[in-house]
Amino acid sequence: MRYLLIYDIGHDGTRNKVADVCLDYGLARIQYSAFLGHLTAAHRRELLLKIRQRLGNHGANIQVFALDEKAWTERRVIEQEEKGSHE
Amino acid sequence: MRYLLIYDIGHDGTRNKVADVCLDYGLARIQYSAFLGHLTAAHRRELLLKIRQRLGNHGANIQVFALDEKAWTERRVIEQEEKGSHE
Repeated sequence: MRYLLIYDIGHDGTRNKVADVCLDYGLARIQYSAFLGHLTAAHRRELLLKIRQRLGNHGANIQVFALDEKAWTERRVIEQEEKGSHE
Repeated sequence: MRYLLIYDIGHDGTRNKVADVCLDYGLARIQYSAFLGHLTAAHRRELLLKIRQRLGNHGANIQVFALDEKAWTERRVIEQEEKGSHE
């Protein structure tokens, strides 16, 4: 299953550790605070367990969403590069 | 349908404008860069149109995911408050 993981983690070191765990599990960083990739149910459980361990006492909000094919097909993306403001 | 919108927008003023548009359309801010709520298909189109207008020339990556009931049921959340580190 394809999963989207998003987080709010204020503490820089903790956020970096959690990002590393996400990358270790094969997720790709699609935004500063968002990761996307395929996981088995077992790996998703493991990933969340490892993230909890990395958090220690730091504040965090982490949310994981399962995206089936239909949800994936309906994804909409706006992507634009910063453009020069001088004509 | 329930939608999740996540963004990376570097320019503060632009990010605030886009956040305001999301709130105007009834989405709730669930993280610093993530909004969640119900939208009709028409409102989702309108919302994306208004966001594009607000972006101007600024760089942005915005992604919108449709979450059906099954995806919603499978959502996992880790939420913890910052705890004091002194015993």
